[in-house]
Parts: sequence; C-alpha cells; structure tokens
Amino acid sequence: MKRNFIASALLAAAFSAGAAGISSPSGNLVLNVSVNDSGTPTYSLSYKGKTLVADSRLGLVADEMGFADNFTISATDTMTVDRSWEPVWGEYSTVRDHFRELAVTFTGGEPSREMTVRFRVFDDGLGFRYELPRQDNANYLTLRDEATEFNFTADHKLFCIPGDYDTDEYLWSETSFSGLPGALASYTGHTESQRSGGNTIQTPLLLKTDGPVYVNLHEAALDGYPAMLIDVDSDTYSMRTNLVPDRLGVRAYLQLPFNTPWRTLIVSDDARDILASQLVLNLNEPCKIEDTSWIKPMKFVGVWWEMFTGRVKSWAYSDDYRAKPGVTDYTKIEPNGHHPANTENVKRYIDFAAAHGIDGVLVEGWNEGWEDWCSYKKNRQFLFDKPYPDFDLPLLRDYAASKGVKLVMHHETAANAVDYERQLERAFQFMKDNNYDAVKTGYVGAIIPRSEHHTSQWMVEHVRHVIERAAAYGIMVDSHEAPRPTGLCRTYPNWLAQESARGGEFESMGGNPPSHTCILPFTRLKGGPMDYTPGLFETRLSHYGEGKDSQAGTTLARQLALYLTMPSPMQMACDLPENYERFPDAFKFIEDVPVDWADSRYLEAEPNQYITVARRDKNSDDWYVGAITDHNARKATIDFSFLPEGVKYLATIYEDAPDADWKENPQAYRIRTVTVDSRTRLKQPLAPGGGTAMRITKK
Amino acid sequence: MKRNFIASALLAAAFSAGAAGISSPSGNLVLNVSVNDSGTPTYSLSYKGKTLVADSRLGLVADEMGFADNFTISATDTMTVDRSWEPVWGEYSTVRDHFRELAVTFTGGEPSREMTVRFRVFDDGLGFRYELPRQDNANYLTLRDEATEFNFTADHKLFCIPGDYDTDEYLWSETSFSGLPGALASYTGHTESQRSGGNTIQTPLLLKTDGPVYVNLHEAALDGYPAMLIDVDSDTYSMRTNLVPDRLGVRAYLQLPFNTPWRTLIVSDDARDILASQLVLNLNEPCKIEDTSWIKPMKFVGVWWEMFTGRVKSWAYSDDYRAKPGVTDYTKIEPNGHHPANTENVKRYIDFAAAHGIDGVLVEGWNEGWEDWCSYKKNRQFLFDKPYPDFDLPLLRDYAASKGVKLVMHHETAANAVDYERQLERAFQFMKDNNYDAVKTGYVGAIIPRSEHHTSQWMVEHVRHVIERAAAYGIMVDSHEAPRPTGLCRTYPNWLAQESARGGEFESMGGNPPSHTCILPFTRLKGGPMDYTPGLFETRLSHYGEGKDSQAGTTLARQLALYLTMPSPMQMACDLPENYERFPDAFKFIEDVPVDWADSRYLEAEPNQYITVARRDKNSDDWYVGAITDHNARKATIDFSFLPEGVKYLATIYEDAPDADWKENPQAYRIRTVTVDSRTRLKQPLAPGGGTAMRITKK
Repeated sequence: MKRNFIASALLAAAFSAGAAGISSPSGNLVLNVSVNDSGTPTYSLSYKGKTLVADSRLGLVADEMGFADNFTISATDTMTVDRSWEPVWGEYSTVRDHFRELAVTFTGGEPSREMTVRFRVFDDGLGFRYELPRQDNANYLTLRDEATEFNFTADHKLFCIPGDYDTDEYLWSETSFSGLPGALASYTGHTESQRSGGNTIQTPLLLKTDGPVYVNLHEAALDGYPAMLIDVDSDTYSMRTNLVPDRLGVRAYLQLPFNTPWRTLIVSDDARDILASQLVLNLNEPCKIEDTSWIKPMKFVGVWWEMFTGRVKSWAYSDDYRAKPGVTDYTKIEPNGHHPANTENVKRYIDFAAAHGIDGVLVEGWNEGWEDWCSYKKNRQFLFDKPYPDFDLPLLRDYAASKGVKLVMHHETAANAVDYERQLERAFQFMKDNNYDAVKTGYVGAIIPRSEHHTSQWMVEHVRHVIERAAAYGIMVDSHEAPRPTGLCRTYPNWLAQESARGGEFESMGGNPPSHTCILPFTRLKGGPMDYTPGLFETRLSHYGEGKDSQAGTTLARQLALYLTMPSPMQMACDLPENYERFPDAFKFIEDVPVDWADSRYLEAEPNQYITVARRDKNSDDWYVGAITDHNARKATIDFSFLPEGVKYLATIYEDAPDADWKENPQAYRIRTVTVDSRTRLKQPLAPGGGTAMRITKK
Repeated sequence: MKRNFIASALLAAAFSAGAAGISSPSGNLVLNVSVNDSGTPTYSLSYKGKTLVADSRLGLVADEMGFADNFTISATDTMTVDRSWEPVWGEYSTVRDHFRELAVTFTGGEPSREMTVRFRVFDDGLGFRYELPRQDNANYLTLRDEATEFNFTADHKLFCIPGDYDTDEYLWSETSFSGLPGALASYTGHTESQRSGGNTIQTPLLLKTDGPVYVNLHEAALDGYPAMLIDVDSDTYSMRTNLVPDRLGVRAYLQLPFNTPWRTLIVSDDARDILASQLVLNLNEPCKIEDTSWIKPMKFVGVWWEMFTGRVKSWAYSDDYRAKPGVTDYTKIEPNGHHPANTENVKRYIDFAAAHGIDGVLVEGWNEGWEDWCSYKKNRQFLFDKPYPDFDLPLLRDYAASKGVKLVMHHETAANAVDYERQLERAFQFMKDNNYDAVKTGYVGAIIPRSEHHTSQWMVEHVRHVIERAAAYGIMVDSHEAPRPTGLCRTYPNWLAQESARGGEFESMGGNPPSHTCILPFTRLKGGPMDYTPGLFETRLSHYGEGKDSQAGTTLARQLALYLTMPSPMQMACDLPENYERFPDAFKFIEDVPVDWADSRYLEAEPNQYITVARRDKNSDDWYVGAITDHNARKATIDFSFLPEGVKYLATIYEDAPDADWKENPQAYRIRTVTVDSRTRLKQPLAPGGGTAMRITKK
C-alpha cells in the first residue's frame, strides 16, 4: 500500500467567529460550516461556484441528551491527504484517496457536550460523519433521531426507490422533488416490504440538477448503526435523515466514543465521474483481514434459475409443507420428484462448469427446511448441516474436487437471523469440512428476532458478524437481502458481493426494464458489487411452457455487456447449461470475461439511459468493453484511446444483430472481429434494450 | 432402566355421551372429562371423594383458529403404566412412574380441528397436556391464549409470588384467594422485574385447603412454549393460565404436531408427599444424553460472596465504566485495586478447596465487560474468552489441576441472550481448552433480543439450546435468571441446577426470613434443584464494617441443614474461606455431606414452617438428616425407622446451642454424637430460625 500523507494545521481552512470552511483539492467543491442562532451546527456545499446544498442542519438526538443545539465551535482541525491503496479486488488495481479534511468540534450546553463533525472534501464529493468522543457527561445514548439535512435548492430530478425498513428490491422511479409523492404512491409492496411511510426514500439515490450536476447521496462504512432513509420535503427541496428503527421505536443504542457512518455526496457535472468515483470505498477503513490470499474472485453457475423458470421445480425435497427440519425424518418422507438440487443434476452442473472453466457451482435447495421455509411462525426454519436425502454431499464434494470445480454453499435463513447465529459456527465448519469456501446467504421474510428490521441496527451488526466469522473460517460471502452495501467490502474483502436491489431473478416475475441496469451503477453499485446474476440467454419464460409469460428486458448480447457494466468479483452465469449449449459462441464471452480489473474507463454515461465502459483485466493486458442502452436503440461511441499508443489489438465484438430487439428478437446477435488501436473511434449500434460486449486482445 | 408397562384399552375409564373418567391407581384421585354446551372441553378432579377442582375449561386460542369450543369427544384411550427409571443424580436412585392415563380426543368445528388432551393420574397428582396432532386444517398457530382453568372451590390458602415476565426472585406470600390482591400490592419490583399486572401469580405455587389438602400447581417439560403465569379470580376461586407473551404480544409460534408442557397438580393431605413427589420429573422425557459418565455432582466454593459483603469489592477490573469489552485495551486501563477475581485470591480459594475436599472453585468477574455490564443500551456486554489482565488463566488452570480442583466458569450475559449465542460455541470451546467442565450462567437485566422476556417462548428455547450445546461439549450448567425449572434436568442431566428464585445472595440485601427456605421446597424445588448457595457462617453483614446492616435469617447450624432440605447436585459452600476457617468443626459437615442421594424420607413438613428430611448417600451406607424451622423455636421429631433394623449407627449432630437464635446469637452451635438405631426417636430442639444437620454412619 502506497501512502502519501500530508498534514497541515492551517491549510485551506478559514476559521473565524463560529464558522469554518474548506475546499476540495481542485477547488471545485467548497464546504462551509457554522452554527446558527440556536447553536445548531450547519453546513453548506457549493460546486463550481454555485450552491448545491444550502445551509443544512447537523445533529443527533438521544433520550439522554441532544447533540443538535446550544453549540459553539470550539476547535477546527484541517489536513490534506493524498494516498493510494490497493484493493484485494475491484475496478482498479490502485485507488487514489485524495481529500482535504476539516474536523469541527462543537461544544456547549448544560451539562456540556462535545461533538466533532469530520468532513472530507474530495474533488468528486463530500463525506462527513459525527464523532462523539469520550466525555464526562455522556456514555450511553438511546438514539431517537439523526437530524442531518441536505437542503437542495431547486426541484431537481430524483432517481430513487421507496423508503423501506426491510427491502430495496424495487424498480427505480425517475421523478423530481415535486413529483415524488405521486411516484411513491405507485409502488406496491412485496415479500419483505415494510414501507417506512411518509415521503421517504432510501439510499443510494441520485439527483440531477438543471445544470446538470449529478449527485449520488449515500453513506459509507455503515457499522453498529442503522441504515439511513431519507425524508423528502417536496416543497422546500429539503432532505433529512430518517434512521431505520427497531420495532420498539429505538434507532440505535450507542456507547461513546462512537463514530457514525459517513454521509456521502458524490458530485460531478459529468455523469461518468459518478460511476468512476471510489469515494465510498475511500471512506471505509482499510482491510482488516491480514492474509487475503484465499480470497479469489470467481464466476459460478448454479442450480437456481431452474426454480424460476415456471417449470414445476422446487427448492423443497418434498411437497409436505408440514415437514420440520431436524424433526421430520427426511429419509422417510415422500419426495416430490421435482427437486433440482439432486445429485445427478448437480453433477451435470459440475460437468458444465468444468468444461467451460467456470469456477463454482451454487446449489440452492440442498438442505432441510424448504418445505415451509418462509414462515416467520416458527423458530427454526433451516438446518445448515443436513443435506436432503437426494443430495449426496460426500459424492458431490469429491466429484467437484476431481473436476477442479468448487461447490458454492447456500444459506437461506428465511430471515431468522438469530437461528442462523445459533448454527453459524457449526455451519461454517461444515462448509470447510466439505471443501466449500464461498456461501450465498439469504434473508427472505420478516426478521427474527422479531424486534428487528432487515436494516435496523441489530441486523447491521448481525451481517457484519457473519462476515467476520466467515473470514475467520476462510469463507467468502455473497449476501442477499442484507442491509444495502456501504463499501465495507474494502474492510472485509471476503464480502465479495451482495444482492440488495432488484436483481435478475425479477426477469421471471414481470421483468426488469432495460433502464434498470442503466440506473443501478449510478445508485446501488456505489456501495459495492451486486450479485445481479447476468448471463440470461433464454429471456422469454414462455420458452418453458406452463403459461408463464414474463420476459426479460434485454437482448442476449446485452447480457454479455452486463459483465462489464455490473462488475462483481463473484459473478454468476445465471442461465441453464442447456441454454448456454444452444449458444456456445456467445457463451465463449462469459468464459473469457474476467471478474477483477486493473483499470476502468467510463466512456459514456447517462442515468437510466446508457453506460459504456472499458476495463483492463487484472491478470493480462486484455481490455474489455461493455455498452448498454435503455429501450431505445442507440449508437455507442467507443473511443479506444485507453489503449497504449501504437499497439494493434483484435476486438471480438458480441453485438446485437441489426434486427435485434429486446422484446421481439432478443436472441439475434452477431460476433465479429475488428482490429483497433488507440486512435480507433467506433460507432457501435445497440438494439432497443440491447448491448455490446467486446474482448480486446493484443494482435 | 426398569420398565413395567401395562396397556389396556378399557381400564378404569368410563366413556359415554361425551364424558370420560379415570382414577389414580389407588383410587384417591378421580378425574372426569366432558364437553359443555358450547362444545368446550372441561375437566374436574376429586380427591378422596371431595371435589378439588370443579368443572374447568380447557383449550387453546390462536390467530388462525381456536381449539376451545365446538368440540365433541371423538375418541378416548386409556392405559396404566407402572415403570421405574434411574436418574443420573437426584433424591432417589430409582424413581417409580406409576399412573393411569386417559387421552381424550376432541374434534369438531368448521373447518374441523382435532385436539387430544392427555391426562395422567398418579396417586400423588395429575398431569395433563394438549396435543395438537398433524391435521389437514391447521399447520401454524400464532398462539394468543391458553384457556386452561383450575377452578377451586373455596377460599384456600395460597403460597405464591407475583406474576412476572422476567423474574421469580421474590419473597413468598402466605395469603388466600381473597387476600391475594392485598398481598400482591405489597410487592415492589427489582432489577429484572416486569410485573405482568392483574391479579396474577406464577408457578410453582402451593394451595392448602381447610382439609387440609395440599396442592402444588406447576408445569412439567416446558420446551418450545412460554412459561405459564396464573390469573386468579379472588371471588370465584378460579385460576386460569396466562402465558408469558413476547413484547409484541404473541404468546407462542407453534407448528403442528405440537405438545404443550404438562400442567401439573401435586395433591396430598400429607404435606410430606408434596416434597417427596417425583411427578414433575416423571412427566419429563427420559435422558437424551447417551453417555452421562462425565456428569458429576459437585460442591464448590467461589469468588462471589466477597462482592456481596459490603467491602469495596467489585466484579469489574476497573472503575472506568466506559470500558468496552473487545475495544478497550484492558492491559492499559487503570485497575481499581479491589477486584477479587485476581490470580492470588483465586489461588487462595483453590488451596482452600483442595485442603477441604471441595470439588470446584467458581470465579465471577474473571472476564472483560463488568465495568458497565448491566446496560441494555449496547449490543455487546461481555467477552467470554477474554480474562482480565489480573486473572492469569493458564497459571490458574495448571495450578487448579495440580491440586485436583476444577475451576467453574462464569458466563454472565447481562441478559443479552443473542450475543451469548453469538459467542457460545467459542465460549464452550474456550472452556474445554482450559479444563473447565461446569458453567454458571446469568441473565441479569432486560433481555436482548429486545422483543423477549426472560420467560417468553424464545428465551425458553434459548436456554434449552444452551443446555444442549453444553452437553455436546461435556459441560454442566447452573443457570441463573433462566426460566423457572420444570423437570427438564431429567432429560438433560447436565443441567445440574438453576437459581430461579430468591437465593442466598439476598441475605446481603435485606435477608431471607427463616420461613423462606421452609416454602421453597414445596414450590420452586418441585421443578428441579436450586443453586441456593447455602453454607453462610458469617450471617451478619455488619461483620465487614462499612455500615452494611443486613442479617441472614438463619443460625449457623441451620445453614448445614440446608444441604439436606435444599438438595442440589451442584451445591455451593458460599462463605469466605476465612469464615470457614473460624469454624472448622462445623465446616467438617460441609466437607462430608454428599450431593447425590440413593433415598430420601421426608419425616416432617409444613409449608412456611418446618421441614425434616433424612437422605441416604448414593455412594455409601451413610444417612444424613436435616431439619429446619421458621422464626419459631421447635422440637423436631426424628424417627430413625428409616435405618435398617438391628444396626447401630453413630449420629454426629450439628445443632443450635440452647441459647442460639437467628437474630441474637446465630453462631451458637454444638456438635455431639449419639448412637441411634431404627427404633430411636429423637426430639431435636431447633432455635428460632435454626436447624440441625446430622451425619449418621455405621458404628
């Protein structure tokens, strides 16, 4: 890790008469901090000379005391930091962390309290957090409110999803401050949904001003604290934090000293900068895992999509929904005969993975408990060390090893987090005993302990605990239905991916419009990689008969592009082997595409509309390009100036055929090769809902 | 295990026109079951020809459906069982389990439901439970109410404590149905108390009719279900179950098939039979632990009472209440200098135990977290594998082993049950790695998960989980602040003891009146052994100076008798070594007294007044006698006819001196020896608040 660390006590900060200020290294962003007449701390932020966030209040309110007024500024401290670090995996082999910092200490009140707000102003945005130091008059806080405001100045465009205590699996609204109430009214709930009520949305969210200036609002390093929702005042254009409470109404139990997560604003007038920003990762703590050699980015296939295809297939071994894990003798129960997680079928997936260089095979439905898994009305849903009788684990373990393929474990908890903890150490030991080193976790349903929500403080701590314990066993994790990511994968790089958004599975349940994957990289992905499950070649569910009519909002070629536009170190090839075998030349791209990158260049971007990105493989000199569009056809402009000058490359282009269309003709693709160099400019057509993927190798 | 199992389909049962009946083997108790005009199941119980429990309703009510009316009796099944079993430890080497059983199946309603109530009528009482079989129209139940009534027939005397969701550490009221409201109004709460409200009491409770007939009302085999409180109607003399809810109002989540705990009535006109009854154990499942050879009853001393004596001593290593376990560097924090769980002091206890043949040394305050342990306002209170810097575990482990003494672990959880589960497997492994095989657990404070109470369903399951996991590691458990025992120690005999009542520690906080230990064996002890912590030789807290004036309600000799009247396989000698060294001849009794018995004979008993019991050592032919009285002096009559005829024994009698008195002269005792045989009748004087202990060995 390379570090350039420059500290200065009197840098660019002005400090006089209860106010302080600092600018970003380039001067584009200027932050001002002061206290108002009530002694309430406020901040404002301008971008390129125009106010972006007007005076906005700061503070915390607890049962024991408030940290929101009667303050004066008692100290300020500034420094400039310019350092870089090397992630274990990611979009870049080296990340620059360059900011100016202003720490403002507020004191006052009776009895006297102290609070520091630490601001870091980067050229691509702002992060700030509350730091409650050890102090005489405060120890515990029963937090009722965080009073942080983000007071915008006009009726900006908003890209957002509803505020919800338990889920983020929504389609995105493109609306505005004034349009938000109507947009929110159009949503209906689903399995986990517990809407927060009010004019409330969640983060990461994106704003676009008339300028335009793009602003991603989120948080970084969410740990020991509830997730943040945002209350919106549609008349005043003000936003305000609304922390997810537990079911008894408490937001958080804190003990001092305590630092909150960072509140983050990624800001640029170039939409591509939002995608390229590493601000959230930079605000997270460095890696806490000493030896990371066992953390290996991977691709995997899985016994999974079969259960979504509309054929009568089931996670459960039996149709007897009264079976109780650990009680029912599954060796004697009647099997339903349509349980895909069986030995023969899993062997087929292992064979396929081995033949195509895919690292892993996920198997869902391998263990006792699926018969009535999403019940909430019982205190044990699953056993994590009891395979169903038709899943011959010793055989499959040895078979996978003989083929050089890794089985990927699945731990669906049905949101019974306490029972998962009850079994956790034994479950992880069971994994290691059986040669597994990656697990996909799931929390479908309402949370147990029943006092909690998916994103309340206790659950945030639960998931972090799972990640830490997994690291202790040398296990990589892909979390589903966990609190939305905030860059903690930097600190715990065994946390390869999360779902935490509406993923590819919804292509079987109404579909995801093409715009969906044009907004996720601007929002959800700023917290960390998503297990979106790209690679869907058979996009029409009607293919499987049985009257299912859902259709994916994508062409086949676009699915290849998603491996570039939705980068993840744990990337699925989600479709069935038999579908890949119908299109072996297209599948070649999935075989080839890396999941870890040395460099990334965002070439074109507009939220909800299009993204074009080029990435360099971390383990070779190959480049890859992915381009996607929304439901409109488009010509992507690919500027190859990222290539080293004077070197000829061969680009293998996987593109939509001229008559391709996500709805009418999704599987029409072409593969062609062209020679390119750093001076090449390519106008690449994309079909409606389409996309292009390229592999670029030295000639 | 000896089993005599006689089944008969048409034994003593009458079954006609919606009614059924059965009598106990001797005919003393007669049970009748019927359905009333609403189709509600009812039962009644008579004892020696007189109605004890008049027609009382039965039933369960869930959100999904009720099981409380619209029933007819569709089947009855009867059998007689006479078998015996051998407990791993206890009051008897063999326990007879002799009852007649009547299983009544109720069906009806739209959609049709089915419920069996299984009654077992013993000569010393009744047990019955609800059995909800697998059925087409019901799977999950969200239980809102159990409608079981116990309709008594007159204004009987009641011995009881208040209904409370979180504690049972109360002094006992001797009152009546009509006096109950006044009695309950006199109680004040304490640390864990969450009074249920209403005219509500908890079990085990004792009734005494004018007859007199004595009735202990409790439950057996509480597992997967909340603890039972009892609502009392002081006008109609009716009692009714009131299950402990979670904080969201649900009593239990059940999945069929499910059997509730047994509701138990121990009945006799001889108070001694209540003490001798093994009915609750008989209604529990047989031992589930295959190899029990590692389960060893034990006596122990401990670094514990020092913290109650009023000297400035502390469980905590430091007085810095802001220290955070796992965060604070305890090696650098300032020690308070009065932390008794330090290496030198523990060595002193080990030396003492070794010199006196005491098996174990409990050490409380050995681990990180005591600085602010009972906080509730944080999500981690303790670490169970981090000794304080002044507790040299490797040294003490080896020192104890060299002396043949076992260290006893302490796991105070501060009622954070989920965090205990989070650490549990590692905590138990840490114990085994350090040669511990017994643990005292504690749950002081309000429960986390915050949706739960100490005795709600989830916590009942939590504690059972801890016991099961302890068994998997070969660890014996003594649970404090856990749900009151219901005989599960038969099924899990590594569960040696529980507190679950107001114990000896309260002698330092106002004292326990002498009557307290004259009622506990009739009530609390029917569920299982209590870690009461007898052996207090220095009964005046003023001995320690510092202005503490609490005095124990006991003479010194009575403390010895408690080892007989409060039997437990994990029995403490609670006082300080230096106090025992002041009275070495009296301490000899504690050295000698066994903690596991071949036979027990209750010679005299009246609740709240006196108990005299004789017990035969399981590992020798020695007998022991203990006799206690309340605040009144008394002459116990000890009939030695339990001795084999014609054999001379030497009885060493530890008795109150003639001028002894619990308040004025508690330490006045005498030791004398007399020769006794089976024809001896001894009139043994007991001082006010006094007692006598005898060791009886063959001459």
